Amino acid sequence: MYDLIIIGGGPAGITAGIYAGRQKMKTLLITKEFGGQIAKKATEICNYPGYPEISGIELIDKFVDHLKRQKDVEIKMSEVGKIEKENDVFTITTTEKEKIEAKSVIIATGSDPRPLEAVGEKEFIGKGVSYCVTCDGPIFKNKTIAIIGGGNAGLEAALFMTNYASKIYVLEACPELKADEFNKKDVAKSDKIEVITNVSVKEIKGEKMVDSLIYQNNTSKENKTLEVQGIFVEVGSQPATSLAKGLVDFTKRDEIEVEFETFKTKTPGLFAAGDNNAGRYKQIITSAGEGCKACLASYDYLRDLNRKQDGKN
Amino acid sequence: MYDLIIIGGGPAGITAGIYAGRQKMKTLLITKEFGGQIAKKATEICNYPGYPEISGIELIDKFVDHLKRQKDVEIKMSEVGKIEKENDVFTITTTEKEKIEAKSVIIATGSDPRPLEAVGEKEFIGKGVSYCVTCDGPIFKNKTIAIIGGGNAGLEAALFMTNYASKIYVLEACPELKADEFNKKDVAKSDKIEVITNVSVKEIKGEKMVDSLIYQNNTSKENKTLEVQGIFVEVGSQPATSLAKGLVDFTKRDEIEVEFETFKTKTPGLFAAGDNNAGRYKQIITSAGEGCKACLASYDYLRDLNRKQDGKN
Repeated sequence: MYDLIIIGGGPAGITAGIYAGRQKMKTLLITKEFGGQIAKKATEICNYPGYPEISGIELIDKFVDHLKRQKDVEIKMSEVGKIEKENDVFTITTTEKEKIEAKSVIIATGSDPRPLEAVGEKEFIGKGVSYCVTCDGPIFKNKTIAIIGGGNAGLEAALFMTNYASKIYVLEACPELKADEFNKKDVAKSDKIEVITNVSVKEIKGEKMVDSLIYQNNTSKENKTLEVQGIFVEVGSQPATSLAKGLVDFTKRDEIEVEFETFKTKTPGLFAAGDNNAGRYKQIITSAGEGCKACLASYDYLRDLNRKQDGKN
Repeated sequence: MYDLIIIGGGPAGITAGIYAGRQKMKTLLITKEFGGQIAKKATEICNYPGYPEISGIELIDKFVDHLKRQKDVEIKMSEVGKIEKENDVFTITTTEKEKIEAKSVIIATGSDPRPLEAVGEKEFIGKGVSYCVTCDGPIFKNKTIAIIGGGNAGLEAALFMTNYASKIYVLEACPELKADEFNKKDVAKSDKIEVITNVSVKEIKGEKMVDSLIYQNNTSKENKTLEVQGIFVEVGSQPATSLAKGLVDFTKRDEIEVEFETFKTKTPGLFAAGDNNAGRYKQIITSAGEGCKACLASYDYLRDLNRKQDGKN
C-alpha cells in the first residue's frame, strides 16, 4: 500500500514526486513517458525561471534527474486505465491489468493535442500531417508547410519551422491571431511566414503523401487550395482525464474541477495538478507549482486520515 | 504610465517580471533587494525542480539574470510606502516620496521574520540574537547556541549550524516538532542537536553579548536557564502587506485574501502573489507559479480595460 500514487511524468507529476520524496512519503509515480508537453516544445524554453534559455529535452532531463534522487519514490513506466476508491483506499488499474493500492492519488496526466477533424487528417498522419514540430520539423527542409492554429503554440511552431521550411502558412480560424505580442511581432518580422486569418481547413489531400489542403473563408465561404507538403496541427489540447470518471466533476472542456489552493477534487484524497485541471493558465512553472501544492495537500490529507484511523482503534 | 508595477524581488516578483517581459508589457519592478526568503535560506535548496542542489544565493543570481534579460522590464531599487487607486489608475508612492503611475499592480512583497517577543530580544539583536543563520551562523563557531522554533525553518537552521556550533538546542513551544519527517530524522541523527519541546522562551540575558536564556515548561510552569552565546529565532514570518491597506481584505494573520486561480484581490487590477497572500503552501516553486499566474491575469485585465476604454471613445 502506497501513501501516494502520482499519475503522470510532466512538470506537475515530477514536482509532486520531488516533494513526496522530501516528505518521506512511500510513493509510486506511474507514467508512459517523461516530459509531458515540454518534450514536444518546438522552440527553446525561455520562461522557466532560473533557465533563461533551455531546450525542452534538456529541461526534462534535469527534472527527471532531480526526481530520481528521491529514494522513497518508485517509478513505473506504464499507463493507468482506471482509478477506483473504496473505504479510504484507492485502487489503480494499469492498462496491463495490474492493480496497485494507495491512500492518496495525484492525477497529473496533462493533455494531448486536439485534432483538427478535417477530411483526410487521420489518414495522412505520419504522411505529412503532424502534431509535433520538434519531432517532425526537420523532415520538411526546403518544403512549403502550413501550421493550423494562430495561438502561441502555432506561432512558436511557425517560428521554429523558419529554421527548416522555405515557406510557412499560418491558418487561423478567428479574424485575429490569439498569441502573445512577443510571438506576433516575431512572426510579422519573418519573410517566410504568411498569416491567413478567418479560415477553416476543410480537407487534406495527396497521393501517398500530403500535397495540398483546402480551406474556406469563414465569411465569404469561398474555398481555396494551398499547395503544401507538410501540415502541423496546433489547435489546442484535450485533457487526459477519462481515467478519473465517476470520481471528479468535469468542465465542458473535460477538465477536472479542483479547489485552486490545494488542487483537491470532489473525492477526498484525490488531487489534479497541471494541464488536466480547470485552471486558466497553463505554463511549465504553474504546473510545477500546482504539483507541489497537490503533494503538500495530500501529505496533510494523509496525516488527518491516519489520525482518524488511530482514533477508531 | 506603466502597464504593470511589480512590488517585490523574490521568486513571485521575479517570475511575474519574466512573464511581463515575454508579454511585452511596459513594466517596472520595485524592490529593496533581490531574493526574498531565498537569500536568507540556511541550507542548500533541494526542492526547486531542475536544480537538485543549489545555494539560495546562486539560485537568486540565476533568477535575477533571467529577469534582466527582459528589455521591457525596468528595475528600481526602492521601497513602496503606499498604493492608491483612482479612475483605473494606480499611484505608487515610494518611501522617497516619488509617485509612479500604472494600470495594474502585483504585490509580491513576501514576508519578514516574526519576532519572539521575549524580554531582552530587541536589545540583543546583533549581539547574539539573529533571524538569519545564513548571514550570522559562522560567527558562532565552537559556541553553544539555541534555535527557537521546531518547524522546518528551525530544524534546517539547526542542521546548518552543525557546521559551526559545538552544541545546538532546539526549543519548541508545542509538545511535538512540526517539521517534515526528512528534517526530523536528520536532527535525530545529529549528536550536536538537543531538542526541548513544550517550552516558551521568557527572557534573553547577558552583559554586552547574550550569555543565557530563560525558558518555561508550558505544563509545569517551571523555569530553567540555558547558557548560550547565540540565539536564532525561527518562529515563522509576518507578511509585508501594510502598503495594501484599504485596497484588499486581510486574514487574521495579515495575509492578503486572493482568488487562488488568478491571484486577484478585491480591487480590480491589483494582484498578490507569493508569501504575502492567504495561500496555505509557501515554497519557492509555488511563489514562482503564483507570480506567473498573477502576471497573465494582469495581462488579461489590461486587455479588458483597454477594450472598455476604447468603447468609451
